[in-house]
Amino acid sequence: MTAKIITITREFGSGGRTIGKQVAAQLGYDFYDWNLVEKIAAESGFAKEFVAKNGEEQDRFMSMLASSSFSFNLNEQLFEAQTRVILELAKKGNCVLVGRCADFLLRNEPNVLSCFIFANEEARKRRILEEYGETNESIDKRLRDKDRRRKAHYQYFTGRKWGKSFFYDLCIDTSRLPLEKCAQMIVEAAKVYEPGPRFTNED
Amino acid sequence: MTAKIITITREFGSGGRTIGKQVAAQLGYDFYDWNLVEKIAAESGFAKEFVAKNGEEQDRFMSMLASSSFSFNLNEQLFEAQTRVILELAKKGNCVLVGRCADFLLRNEPNVLSCFIFANEEARKRRILEEYGETNESIDKRLRDKDRRRKAHYQYFTGRKWGKSFFYDLCIDTSRLPLEKCAQMIVEAAKVYEPGPRFTNED
Repeated sequence: MTAKIITITREFGSGGRTIGKQVAAQLGYDFYDWNLVEKIAAESGFAKEFVAKNGEEQDRFMSMLASSSFSFNLNEQLFEAQTRVILELAKKGNCVLVGRCADFLLRNEPNVLSCFIFANEEARKRRILEEYGETNESIDKRLRDKDRRRKAHYQYFTGRKWGKSFFYDLCIDTSRLPLEKCAQMIVEAAKVYEPGPRFTNED
Repeated sequence: MTAKIITITREFGSGGRTIGKQVAAQLGYDFYDWNLVEKIAAESGFAKEFVAKNGEEQDRFMSMLASSSFSFNLNEQLFEAQTRVILELAKKGNCVLVGRCADFLLRNEPNVLSCFIFANEEARKRRILEEYGETNESIDKRLRDKDRRRKAHYQYFTGRKWGKSFFYDLCIDTSRLPLEKCAQMIVEAAKVYEPGPRFTNED
C-alpha cells in the first residue's frame, strides 16, 4: 500500500520544498507548492500576490487584532479558500503538498504520510543565501521574521504547537543529512505505508 | 561518514527497542538497553532492581519533593552514575543506546544520530499486549502510568519537552509503518550522516 498524499510542513530554508519536489518526481505524484497559490487565487478571487503573502504567514500584530478587523477577516476567508482547494486535491490523491497547514487540514485522512522538515539556523542560513541570494536585510533578520510569521500563522489557524513530533509520521532534521537521502526515506516510507488513524491527543 | 552513536528515545510500546536492536545488528554496533542496567549498577553500587525501576521513570510525587528528601537524592545520584556510563560508552562509539536520556546527555557530541520513536495509543496497546502479555492491571492504566513516569523523569532531568522534534535528527511514528522499515531508514541515515552541531535553541 502506498500513501496517496504526502504533506510536507517545513521551516524556511530547511530544504523541505526541494525534498517534496524529489518525492513527487520519484512517486510520479503531482507537486503543489507555488502552483497552489494560483489555484487558491482562482478559487477565492484574491490576487495571487495576496495569497502568496498571507496564505502561510501572519504578523504577530495581526493575530492580536479583534475579529472585527477587515484584514483579519480577509485572512480568515483566504484560509477557508485554501482549505477547500487542499481538500479537493486530497480527494484526487497522488500528490505532494508543501506547507499551507495541509498536515492539519488532512489530519483525519487515513492515507496521508505527514512529514515535518527542519534544520538548525546555521544550515538554514546557508541554504537561504544559496537559493535566494543576498538582500538588503541581514540573513538573521530574514530568518527570524519568516520563522515568526510562518509559526504565528500555523499556530493561529491550527491551534497546534509548531514542531511537535506527534503530529507527523516523519520528522527530519536536514542539518546533517543530504536532502536526496531525506527524499528517499520519505519515498520508501510512503511505499510501505499502512493507512490508519493518526495521533488523537492534541494536547 | 557513518554516525558513531545512535540514540533511541522511545515511547513505551512504540517498538523503539526492537528498532534499536535491528539497527545495531545491521550496523554491527553494540546494543545497550537492559544490559545498560548492569553497567550502571556496577558503576553506582545501586542494586540492579533499583536502577531498572528508577533509571528511567519517576513518580510525579517524587518530582515535587524537596531536595532534602533521601529518595530524591538517590535518584540524583543514580542519574549521575548513568551519565558517567553513557558518556564512557559514547567515547568508544559504535553503539546504539536506548532510553535513559542519552539523547540529552550526548547533545553536544557531533557524531550522534538522535532518534525519537513513538506511536499512537492503539498501536502501542496492541504491541504491549503482544510483547509483555496481560497483567492484572488494565492496558490503559499500564500505558498511562508508564507514559507519565517516563515523561516526568525525562523532563525533570533534561528540562526538555517530551517529543519536541527539534531535539532529534529523526522522529518516526511507528503506528503506520513496519518496524523493519523504520530500522532501515535509521541505518541509511546513519550511513550518510555528516557530523555537525545540533539545534542550539532549547526553548
